[in-house]
Amino acid sequence: MAERKNRQWLLSARPHGLIKTSDFKWNETVVPPLKDGEVLIRNLAFSFDPTQRGWMSFDTYIPAIPLGRPMMAAAVGEIVESKKPGFAPGDLVQGLFGWEDYTTTDGAGLFAMQKLAPGTDPLLALSLFGITGLTAYFGTLAVGQPRAGETFVVSGAAGATGSVAGMIAKIKGCRVVGIAGGPEKCAWLTGEAGFDAAIDYKHENVGEALGRACPKGIDVYFDNVGGEILDHALAHLANRARVVLCGAISQYNEENGVFGAGPKNYFNLVFRAARMEGFLVFQFAQSYPEAIADLSKWYAEGKIKNKIDLAHGLEHCPETLIRLFTGANWGKQLLTMS
Amino acid sequence: MAERKNRQWLLSARPHGLIKTSDFKWNETVVPPLKDGEVLIRNLAFSFDPTQRGWMSFDTYIPAIPLGRPMMAAAVGEIVESKKPGFAPGDLVQGLFGWEDYTTTDGAGLFAMQKLAPGTDPLLALSLFGITGLTAYFGTLAVGQPRAGETFVVSGAAGATGSVAGMIAKIKGCRVVGIAGGPEKCAWLTGEAGFDAAIDYKHENVGEALGRACPKGIDVYFDNVGGEILDHALAHLANRARVVLCGAISQYNEENGVFGAGPKNYFNLVFRAARMEGFLVFQFAQSYPEAIADLSKWYAEGKIKNKIDLAHGLEHCPETLIRLFTGANWGKQLLTMS
Repeated sequence: MAERKNRQWLLSARPHGLIKTSDFKWNETVVPPLKDGEVLIRNLAFSFDPTQRGWMSFDTYIPAIPLGRPMMAAAVGEIVESKKPGFAPGDLVQGLFGWEDYTTTDGAGLFAMQKLAPGTDPLLALSLFGITGLTAYFGTLAVGQPRAGETFVVSGAAGATGSVAGMIAKIKGCRVVGIAGGPEKCAWLTGEAGFDAAIDYKHENVGEALGRACPKGIDVYFDNVGGEILDHALAHLANRARVVLCGAISQYNEENGVFGAGPKNYFNLVFRAARMEGFLVFQFAQSYPEAIADLSKWYAEGKIKNKIDLAHGLEHCPETLIRLFTGANWGKQLLTMS
Repeated sequence: MAERKNRQWLLSARPHGLIKTSDFKWNETVVPPLKDGEVLIRNLAFSFDPTQRGWMSFDTYIPAIPLGRPMMAAAVGEIVESKKPGFAPGDLVQGLFGWEDYTTTDGAGLFAMQKLAPGTDPLLALSLFGITGLTAYFGTLAVGQPRAGETFVVSGAAGATGSVAGMIAKIKGCRVVGIAGGPEKCAWLTGEAGFDAAIDYKHENVGEALGRACPKGIDVYFDNVGGEILDHALAHLANRARVVLCGAISQYNEENGVFGAGPKNYFNLVFRAARMEGFLVFQFAQSYPEAIADLSKWYAEGKIKNKIDLAHGLEHCPETLIRLFTGANWGKQLLTMS
């Protein structure tokens, strides 16, 4: 068989501050021969997630991506060659693949490769029914445990996870308040997304606005941003509140990353007999099928909107990732190869 | 009836930094006539608790003590006069009373006055069977939920609550590590108190020592101190760990008190899918009887030691309270009137 050309983005530097396009290096190579147990995947679409900055930087729940190796992403592709039992050319698969035309993998690991039903929309698979939607689902329901009538606040509310978290809390009967950047995102939250209130952190005093929007305090706070906004939320907790720690995007590019500054108001957890809990979506892997069933139903009923921010072309991967950290994206950031 | 003389300590200033004896003012007055619904109590013994600094400073779970009013404390006394149904002269009672010879009260509020069985030892009632022991009991069992074989770490381990928390975790089959100040306290922890290991924060690098003492990470961390030690513990969490927030005595005297510095390593709660939870012992009030039954049994069996640090004489109340914040006390700090 003729050699296949493979264009790819290698990780060339650990990021300091905001991720730069120079943290990646364009490379053109050829696909190596397949070994037993491996598949060759033609990538179709990539997901862009804040957690990727962690993978670029240090060992987290997965080992850091080695320098000089392809940058990794949650992705959907089509198998073009297989030496792995159970997988055949033409199969649509989802997993952790590289920013490249073709990925060779055994499909093992925390993001184990999974087959998708024929005809599945890769964009839906990578957003609402992927890590993003599952993170919103389990963070909201299993960790936050909102009850009807409670006040649910979410930061990064116009983002992929935050918007779905708020819509799920709304389905569960909560008063839902979103914190997002800019009047357009806020108008979308209280309009199409059905939130009860929105706070524009770029133009409002978040502490005062939370006081007005949450007169009985915050029962569940779903945090995607960390930093000062987390402190404002902690100052407004209701008794027995739950703080769901999902992300800290305001901190990822700071000098010491997520370990730079702690939440000064953490001791309100004592005064309010409240809890703050982190989670990794993988701990709920056994319940993914129920979650996807619920999300499918709500999506079909129009109760959950799946807003996608779509880029095109492998060559634009680095700048597309950077959009997450400048707040440029609106909804789930994805990229298709063509 | 002849007027009764009443010596008392009034709160004269909100504390700044370490509490000073000049934050209190000695006063000699007479007991006012009793109104309907009130009792007159001759105080016998006072409890000294870090949370009292909060009561002196600002509204917490109870309103701040007004300036010019007697300083309040958990206390045991004997009723000498009663206009309250159900309470009679000679009854031994526990509640929130003043630093004074005689307290006049209707006994209502969060620390509602409760009758003690005749012959109860006031020192036991104010320590193991009082707020201190109950805080250790519910913080450890209801919030921390330790399982046999897990690693349980407690700070302020030679203190009244910390030592009991560690001994309860030991009863539940945990490996128990205490953090305390000085070699004598540490020797007591691994000796009489039965802990598996002790770390002397005054002479050891706490982070390194935790790494050695907890090779599989910390499953439950019971925090009485906050500050840097909380950060070291967060850095050593095991997956699905529970951090029990009980106090932050290292911070109470800092410029911004418990709201001065947040735990920089809080984001490990995400990487470890762990939780950090505050509590107030009052939320478990309905379960006090079972708790006291368990604690009584363990005390009788010698599985829990009740170490008391006893001062004498009303005139020494202010300096006795200060002992808590300099780390001078060892075990439960109490004071008897004579």
